[in-house]
Amino acid sequence: MAGEFALHERLAADTWPLAESRLSLLRLMDDQQYPWLLLVPKCLDVREIHELTEGDQHQLLNESSAIGRALLAEFGGDKLNVAALGNQVPQLHLHHVVRFEEDPAWPGPIWGVHPPLAYDEQTLATVKERLRPVIDCFEQAGGTGA
Amino acid sequence: MAGEFALHERLAADTWPLAESRLSLLRLMDDQQYPWLLLVPKCLDVREIHELTEGDQHQLLNESSAIGRALLAEFGGDKLNVAALGNQVPQLHLHHVVRFEEDPAWPGPIWGVHPPLAYDEQTLATVKERLRPVIDCFEQAGGTGA
Repeated sequence: MAGEFALHERLAADTWPLAESRLSLLRLMDDQQYPWLLLVPKCLDVREIHELTEGDQHQLLNESSAIGRALLAEFGGDKLNVAALGNQVPQLHLHHVVRFEEDPAWPGPIWGVHPPLAYDEQTLATVKERLRPVIDCFEQAGGTGA
Repeated sequence: MAGEFALHERLAADTWPLAESRLSLLRLMDDQQYPWLLLVPKCLDVREIHELTEGDQHQLLNESSAIGRALLAEFGGDKLNVAALGNQVPQLHLHHVVRFEEDPAWPGPIWGVHPPLAYDEQTLATVKERLRPVIDCFEQAGGTGA
């Protein structure tokens, strides 16, 4: 499964690597306007959640719930947005975005509303430090990578 | 669980009832611009997927995958969008939207882009007829209602 998998070039360009489980890559979207993680199953040619095997679907859900819960615990936030869209990048990827009533897109969805505000070295280091417990929960849910 | 559950008034106003499983309500969004279904777990005060019990999370996923697969089989479409947002209506509800490259919001997300175009009696009857196999798959995945 992981043999021929390659992260879509647009996802590779727009995100930072955080961690890896047997099933998935965990990536940070390069936009400091929102705490925003992607889960990307390392499965070839899969575009929809329902195309995964039932076991992988449940594993993806377990990982998703683990990071969702940990994100809200760490960042607070008024709501979590979880979405598999993929209209522009067909490789299956699951967004997890912590939303705040003060964020620039509230209460609408975030996609395509404001141009991304990339992290600089300092803000990236800070958010990675805050994401440490989220990564721990992901790794507990997902086992070790590859 | 189902004893005190009540569908949020905004969801009740914006959707048509289709079917019910032990866990969830299946509703049709009243917008003929997209084939657009909602799954609403009948759980009190649940806002996030990860707040459901693990068993209910997996059941919700099974229902979601069943209707997602059936929607694409019936309507075709270029992509399915699956999302739990809830910034405006906090009661947990999972969107399933069949997207087409010719639809009015493509390739962006649909939420908040174009005002809904409500069904009339004839188009509602037609879409309900087309949704029959989707409802069948939902009921097979979810068991019988209430």
